[in-house]
Amino acid sequence: MTTVIETSTAARRSAELEEQIALRPNDFRVLTGDRPTGLLHLGHYFGTLHNRVRLQRQGVEMMVIIADYQVLTDRDLAEHLGEHVDDLVLDYLAAGIDPQTATIFTHSAVAALNQLLLPFLSLVSVSELSRNPTVKDEINHSRQAAVSGLMFTYPAHQAADILFCKANLVPVGQDQLPHLELTRTIARRFNDRYGRLLPEPDALLSPAPLLLGTDGTKMSKSRGNAITLSATADETARLIRGAKTDAQRHITYDPQSRPEVSSLVLLAALCLGRDPHDVAADIGPGGAAALKRTVTEAVNEHLAPMRERRTAFAQDRGYLRRILREGNERANAIAEATLAEVRSAMGTRY
Amino acid sequence: MTTVIETSTAARRSAELEEQIALRPNDFRVLTGDRPTGLLHLGHYFGTLHNRVRLQRQGVEMMVIIADYQVLTDRDLAEHLGEHVDDLVLDYLAAGIDPQTATIFTHSAVAALNQLLLPFLSLVSVSELSRNPTVKDEINHSRQAAVSGLMFTYPAHQAADILFCKANLVPVGQDQLPHLELTRTIARRFNDRYGRLLPEPDALLSPAPLLLGTDGTKMSKSRGNAITLSATADETARLIRGAKTDAQRHITYDPQSRPEVSSLVLLAALCLGRDPHDVAADIGPGGAAALKRTVTEAVNEHLAPMRERRTAFAQDRGYLRRILREGNERANAIAEATLAEVRSAMGTRY
Repeated sequence: MTTVIETSTAARRSAELEEQIALRPNDFRVLTGDRPTGLLHLGHYFGTLHNRVRLQRQGVEMMVIIADYQVLTDRDLAEHLGEHVDDLVLDYLAAGIDPQTATIFTHSAVAALNQLLLPFLSLVSVSELSRNPTVKDEINHSRQAAVSGLMFTYPAHQAADILFCKANLVPVGQDQLPHLELTRTIARRFNDRYGRLLPEPDALLSPAPLLLGTDGTKMSKSRGNAITLSATADETARLIRGAKTDAQRHITYDPQSRPEVSSLVLLAALCLGRDPHDVAADIGPGGAAALKRTVTEAVNEHLAPMRERRTAFAQDRGYLRRILREGNERANAIAEATLAEVRSAMGTRY
Repeated sequence: MTTVIETSTAARRSAELEEQIALRPNDFRVLTGDRPTGLLHLGHYFGTLHNRVRLQRQGVEMMVIIADYQVLTDRDLAEHLGEHVDDLVLDYLAAGIDPQTATIFTHSAVAALNQLLLPFLSLVSVSELSRNPTVKDEINHSRQAAVSGLMFTYPAHQAADILFCKANLVPVGQDQLPHLELTRTIARRFNDRYGRLLPEPDALLSPAPLLLGTDGTKMSKSRGNAITLSATADETARLIRGAKTDAQRHITYDPQSRPEVSSLVLLAALCLGRDPHDVAADIGPGGAAALKRTVTEAVNEHLAPMRERRTAFAQDRGYLRRILREGNERANAIAEATLAEVRSAMGTRY
């Protein structure tokens, strides 16, 4: 019950924020980002990337962190960090993140950001860290036998990500609300103790459409059921051809009772910018074959310009390097300025 | 039983190290330091400072960290950080630490050192952090209601202190051996995973003489039973005059059955560079009054040149600032070089 109320408060607040963003986009700085875990897929795209590009186009400043230190406990990922970081930058550029206005940077390159972890850790208790549901979840889904110190302190590191650049807006899904709440707590405690310096960032609740993988389970690259932004049109067609549907011939949009078919309808609708009920009605008696044809065309058409950009950028590794280098430089300048203020406030400049 | 064996191994190893230090002091870099908790007293001096100055005079390079981030959870200390840091630098200079060859620096000024906490936290589990006896002890003695994330991760931060400068020698008391063991574990795991880069530092077990406070309990500034390096000769005389002795007139050195008297005898002996049994025999029938006279004279004479230096340096705050600034610069150069190597080894330079 509490969660429902909290969510509806967050949703109401987010609606207010959207109005303010439309009026005064320059008042907002967004912190967002990803762990470099591999190629982004349509779930990521319609879940977050799409929203970031929308905010950027409205004129909101975007800080995009590649959380490369937050994959170290996964050995497979850690061994291919460079590749995963490149893929992430390519996917960002493909989706429309503009490195001229957005700052794309990595954890490992911004020492002053990482230093903030220390004072922030002094403001939270071990039990507060243990209680964090996202960490609990990470722990449950972790492939590691033991929980690392890094995973345990992740929420405080995330507070450093958000507060080093004084971001006042963090687009989140509903499940990430508690995570952001800890950042707000850290900012509040810091300000109470050392004087008002850090903003308490707002959550911008972004409703992520529920897209299933082509096998009807959670979309995930490791399950081979996800269409990546970088897949070819043929690979995309093959995946959709093999997608799970159901025994009913007539296509309808009914996520509750027909999750697989409805997910495909939704995907087409998102790509076409149409209402899923309308898309389903148009296909109707055409059945699964017509549905899959519609989805394949819609996805490939929607992704075509992104894939073209991605291919072009992928041929210019020097350009990727430069984007990261410039992003890291900008992030370092911001982090060093904030750290200097933090050190003054704390009385640790001697 | 295990502890006894471990300690005796550590003691044997330390004896070997002392021989190597005497032969090749330039092969060693020591990391040592203190939390800025206030004025240092004779317990600190004969426990650690004295030993540091000895190593420095033998030609060993000293890195001396002022762990200013490790007092943040104690509000009283955190509110007077600048003062405590100045006092620590003054006590170092007074005791004979030479800022020309020793690098004196603070946690808060060396971002690249602090960044190492993140990869190091990925190499230890939450249960390993929980098990650390020094942290357990800190937690038990803490004035805080809850254990902070900072205190919990302290052993990993200490590993960063030691490994950022590739110190290969850490002078410790017996109770700190497990702490150093975690640093060795982190270095070993890092090297196993990313390639040989970090030394596994050796513990140099320094037998700290058991000096009690003037009331016969543990020496501690907060109990008002400690003679600080910076106390005047009169304050010192007053403290020793009020020191607890016992009902036996004849002075002997017998720490087991006469702890208070023996601690005073030991203090005089340490200051005079003599054997405590000889000092006690000389006083013998003179009783407590003669003992206290001897101790007062010995302490004041021993500390006189240090106090003189301390007073002189205290008048030149600009000099103190310069020592810290230069120390921080040197520490930063070392930390940035190590972090660059660490980032290369980990594949996080893109």
